[in-house]
Amino acid sequence: MTVRVGVIGAGWIGKEHIRRLTDTVTGARVTAVTDIDAARAAEAAAPVGARVLPDGAALIAADDVDAVLVTSWGPTHAEHVLNATAAGKPVFCEKPLATTAEDCLRIVEAETALGRRLVQVGFMRRYDTGYRKMKQVIDSGRIGEPLIVHCAHRNPTVPESYTSSMAALDTAVHEVDVLRWLLDDEIVSTQVVTPRATSKRFAHLKDPQIMLFETARGVRIDLEVFVNCQYGYDIQCEAVGEEGLVRLPDPASVGLRSAGQHSTEVLTDWVARFADAFDTEFREWIAGVAAGSEPTGPSAWDGYAATVITSATVEALESGRVVATDLKPRPALYGGAA
Amino acid sequence: MTVRVGVIGAGWIGKEHIRRLTDTVTGARVTAVTDIDAARAAEAAAPVGARVLPDGAALIAADDVDAVLVTSWGPTHAEHVLNATAAGKPVFCEKPLATTAEDCLRIVEAETALGRRLVQVGFMRRYDTGYRKMKQVIDSGRIGEPLIVHCAHRNPTVPESYTSSMAALDTAVHEVDVLRWLLDDEIVSTQVVTPRATSKRFAHLKDPQIMLFETARGVRIDLEVFVNCQYGYDIQCEAVGEEGLVRLPDPASVGLRSAGQHSTEVLTDWVARFADAFDTEFREWIAGVAAGSEPTGPSAWDGYAATVITSATVEALESGRVVATDLKPRPALYGGAA
Amino acid sequence: MTVRVGVIGAGWIGKEHIRRLTDTVTGARVTAVTDIDAARAAEAAAPVGARVLPDGAALIAADDVDAVLVTSWGPTHAEHVLNATAAGKPVFCEKPLATTAEDCLRIVEAETALGRRLVQVGFMRRYDTGYRKMKQVIDSGRIGEPLIVHCAHRNPTVPESYTSSMAALDTAVHEVDVLRWLLDDEIVSTQVVTPRATSKRFAHLKDPQIMLFETARGVRIDLEVFVNCQYGYDIQCEAVGEEGLVRLPDPASVGLRSAGQHSTEVLTDWVARFADAFDTEFREWIAGVAAGSEPTGPSAWDGYAATVITSATVEALESGRVVATDLKPRPALYGGAA
Amino acid sequence: MTVRVGVIGAGWIGKEHIRRLTDTVTGARVTAVTDIDAARAAEAAAPVGARVLPDGAALIAADDVDAVLVTSWGPTHAEHVLNATAAGKPVFCEKPLATTAEDCLRIVEAETALGRRLVQVGFMRRYDTGYRKMKQVIDSGRIGEPLIVHCAHRNPTVPESYTSSMAALDTAVHEVDVLRWLLDDEIVSTQVVTPRATSKRFAHLKDPQIMLFETARGVRIDLEVFVNCQYGYDIQCEAVGEEGLVRLPDPASVGLRSAGQHSTEVLTDWVARFADAFDTEFREWIAGVAAGSEPTGPSAWDGYAATVITSATVEALESGRVVATDLKPRPALYGGAA
Repeated sequence: MTVRVGVIGAGWIGKEHIRRLTDTVTGARVTAVTDIDAARAAEAAAPVGARVLPDGAALIAADDVDAVLVTSWGPTHAEHVLNATAAGKPVFCEKPLATTAEDCLRIVEAETALGRRLVQVGFMRRYDTGYRKMKQVIDSGRIGEPLIVHCAHRNPTVPESYTSSMAALDTAVHEVDVLRWLLDDEIVSTQVVTPRATSKRFAHLKDPQIMLFETARGVRIDLEVFVNCQYGYDIQCEAVGEEGLVRLPDPASVGLRSAGQHSTEVLTDWVARFADAFDTEFREWIAGVAAGSEPTGPSAWDGYAATVITSATVEALESGRVVATDLKPRPALYGGAA
Repeated sequence: MTVRVGVIGAGWIGKEHIRRLTDTVTGARVTAVTDIDAARAAEAAAPVGARVLPDGAALIAADDVDAVLVTSWGPTHAEHVLNATAAGKPVFCEKPLATTAEDCLRIVEAETALGRRLVQVGFMRRYDTGYRKMKQVIDSGRIGEPLIVHCAHRNPTVPESYTSSMAALDTAVHEVDVLRWLLDDEIVSTQVVTPRATSKRFAHLKDPQIMLFETARGVRIDLEVFVNCQYGYDIQCEAVGEEGLVRLPDPASVGLRSAGQHSTEVLTDWVARFADAFDTEFREWIAGVAAGSEPTGPSAWDGYAATVITSATVEALESGRVVATDLKPRPALYGGAA
Repeated sequence: MTVRVGVIGAGWIGKEHIRRLTDTVTGARVTAVTDIDAARAAEAAAPVGARVLPDGAALIAADDVDAVLVTSWGPTHAEHVLNATAAGKPVFCEKPLATTAEDCLRIVEAETALGRRLVQVGFMRRYDTGYRKMKQVIDSGRIGEPLIVHCAHRNPTVPESYTSSMAALDTAVHEVDVLRWLLDDEIVSTQVVTPRATSKRFAHLKDPQIMLFETARGVRIDLEVFVNCQYGYDIQCEAVGEEGLVRLPDPASVGLRSAGQHSTEVLTDWVARFADAFDTEFREWIAGVAAGSEPTGPSAWDGYAATVITSATVEALESGRVVATDLKPRPALYGGAA
Repeated sequence: MTVRVGVIGAGWIGKEHIRRLTDTVTGARVTAVTDIDAARAAEAAAPVGARVLPDGAALIAADDVDAVLVTSWGPTHAEHVLNATAAGKPVFCEKPLATTAEDCLRIVEAETALGRRLVQVGFMRRYDTGYRKMKQVIDSGRIGEPLIVHCAHRNPTVPESYTSSMAALDTAVHEVDVLRWLLDDEIVSTQVVTPRATSKRFAHLKDPQIMLFETARGVRIDLEVFVNCQYGYDIQCEAVGEEGLVRLPDPASVGLRSAGQHSTEVLTDWVARFADAFDTEFREWIAGVAAGSEPTGPSAWDGYAATVITSATVEALESGRVVATDLKPRPALYGGAA
């Protein structure tokens, strides 16, 4: 059975996922596309033989749409996800699930009322081979109980439109999700320390930032977010446990010896870094939809937690204080006691 | 357009490729399967909804077969490839193209007579990311003219049925192909040096072996083939040029520190090592067939060269002498002057 | 000219340095030893033909003592260093220079009054090849202005006598000194974050601890101190600058491939880790004394700063607050404006 | 007791060792120097307060010379070593022990007649930390019986005076010695394969060369000698055994990330590569002389073997044939049965 996917939002990431669902992932076909810019929708739909629909509601309602992919502008996510849920259709929503905690909670409540999960949020790192191996090692007990995680998220440069709060909301959000999953633990407080800012940035931006998270079990996480590091796109993660440590691998690269140097390449492009993770993410999502099973990836609850934690981190940055995340009790649907 | 593939030979590798064409590669569908063991064919065909045909000739002739995949027993390859070529259908043949130089040449002559390429041989290493980056570096001139290549091909263990000549015919054949391609050069002579044999082998087997190749341009290659190395499946390749060297990366693996050791994993399974390469190999082959273009992968000529060179290496092993490969002139269809 | 060294304190480190001055460093000879335990002094003095003197004062006054090495119990350091300074003799004092800021300042004032440096403090990391290369890279501008430094100081286990405040006073003190020197910058505030404690410790101990330092120029430093990490003695340091980063190398170790693992050794012993640094430290100190020049190693001022900063870190640990270090103005003798 | 050393030959390496014996190694003093160029001898002797003697014979006979260091022109080595042996004085001879097998044998016979070892030959690699760890691993049985060793000896460039036979006699001679010691085995045959020559060489030179050695126990060694590799001074050695492999570490170097590259430094200078090994070599030699014990380093027999094997390798290069080394039976003094 081929899963027929409708795509809401035909910007860069929407087009990238349409290509992925068409060329890389088996068992799926994009049948409908919508966008607030109809021409853009048409341009994305044509090469894959999809039809263009006027808006998200029409697309979600369409008979030839088995599952919905939301890649529109962030503030519109909640509405589309709620509509898809109401229609009983599986929906994959690029991060963020919603831009406010309240909207995230509305989705969580809708799913809870329904009694089964329909929503998956697009945190692709859980599908990266390196992170998966890290999780295997941690879960195996080989490093003992985790105590500390050291992370870095570095990007060569960002455009002027990138603001200081985006360091948490858009950049650190990936670590927030993957660390909650890696540790199977919740982040309960957040703090931001601001080093001297790099001179290689737009003047309004606080860059780099060091974020400090504490989990419910007392694990401490330090995360360097440095979005104008110049030298490359570089993701580092090291978990220190009671008996050892495990470290995320760098991407494999040929080794070169020349001119007095032994060198390997550092990627400069995040798309290349996580291309395989994106493929696996969609492959597993489509397989689940085809099987009629609930999604196993990041849930609406994970989307809610990510929004709450990153928003609290923005507050921590602005106030200079330690901020508690004060998440609601986790409903049983998501493995919680509530 | 979906490419309809008929598969001749439903053993382990045949089933693996059927799974790959079904689950991993878009744009293809396996429609027909045959095997000398009809029950085995049926077992492979059922899950993908393919029909079972009585033999290779029937399968090649079938209307619902656009392209043929040959994964049968080596000595039968030539017949199926020749039949497919005669039928004007694209054919992907697992290595070897044929077990004798004469049979390989018959295929080369058939294609040459036809005036276009239909045959691709299953040397998957050309599709491995690491080897592709090595080739980019070499072709870019960053290490200068290549002079020496050091290689190792190590396997944890082999069964009793593995013979000394298989070190060249089945194992080193992968390096023979990938080195000819990496260097864009031909292997003109071969020699085998036999170190003290490991005690961890069946008594009849010469293991390890060191093969020494010389290319037309004078590059010297040393290749350690060690198929009972115990510790893992380990592929090493380092090209030394006039100004530097480039080295194949090890697969990325999480780093672990525990008990006084920093360690990374060595794979023990060749399937895991080249899984991505197999996927890419078939993705590109299917895309080419769909586009109606000639295959860009290893050609019938490459299959011929591999068979000649590895057969000469067996002769070198048995005689203790340096053996010239004496390849025929390369026809223009394959980029040669003949 | 051979430098005749008198040694005050014949415990483990005293004996180690006597051995070093005798067997490893040229141009020096240990001529006198004293210890509160006369038998211990005699035991240390005999193999090198030194005489035993009743106390530090007598040793400092001795005609056959050109330079003094203080390796006695920490609280006695200040008295011996002040006596040596008063006698106009070069004195090498193992860390700490003194256990209180007040005593350190008395030494600084004595030297300032004298108008020239006689004191060197035993922070050996400045003599480690890896740290020296890091400093060269930073000073060369190749990573741009430093913004962040990530460090870890891990020890396999500590005895029951090791207390929570020793994490700063005895362990982190090495990073405090080497970071001030690496960055040529002063630490102005300190904070301690305590992750969940490892279960593999004595109950009274807070372990691990994460120390957060800020420098005058705004560099932020995070330092993991983990003294029961089990797996090895592991020193990590990575400086992130505006254009790149530089990382302290791990000690060179043979690579081993066996049983599905590629592994290198992690040292378990700090003595082995910094043995070469100790040798270089004494070689350069003795050469300076022989030449009659002022010491170029860590000064009394550096000893004062280390004591103030680590004491403030203990206060930060105990109070849970950010603590300013409030160092006095640096006198001109030590490169300051005061 | 200070060992008084007389030095025969005050060229570059002679001066380097005089500096080492004076500044780096304890327990030694250079008391006498001679050279065919008296001015050069005077220049080397003055800074260390040594006297100049007219020739090797006078120096060996001098009362204030306890041990002799031979760093003169290779063809003169044998005479000085024989004289020192006749005088019953310990003698350290830089490689080669002698330039002909006959002269080496005369020294071996002189020692054998004497019944105790006085001679040590300057193969410093046995004192390198990395090779020593390799030997520990091999001797521990952790890789099982060694079967193959892969080596490379690369130098950035050589002057016009460097000839094709020097690749064996001057360059590979270090591997010949260290491999005999690592494996505790003898090299019984040698062969040379010549790849296409690099264009970055003087026209008369065959560079690179691949040398193939076989040992008495059947271990096969391949050694790439490439003395115009441009990029650095790079020594590689990997021993493959029945159960695993061990690899010589690269020198530790800070890791740098900048401009899309992760890089570490490759040394360009062999002196830096083996500086610590030279120090240890002389420290152990002096300690042995002081203790009156026989030297434990490379013996006259090792010097003989190195000369025979490298001469056979030159013959192999020139003839294109496999050449047997045909060493004489090893006398009991050197651990042999003869």
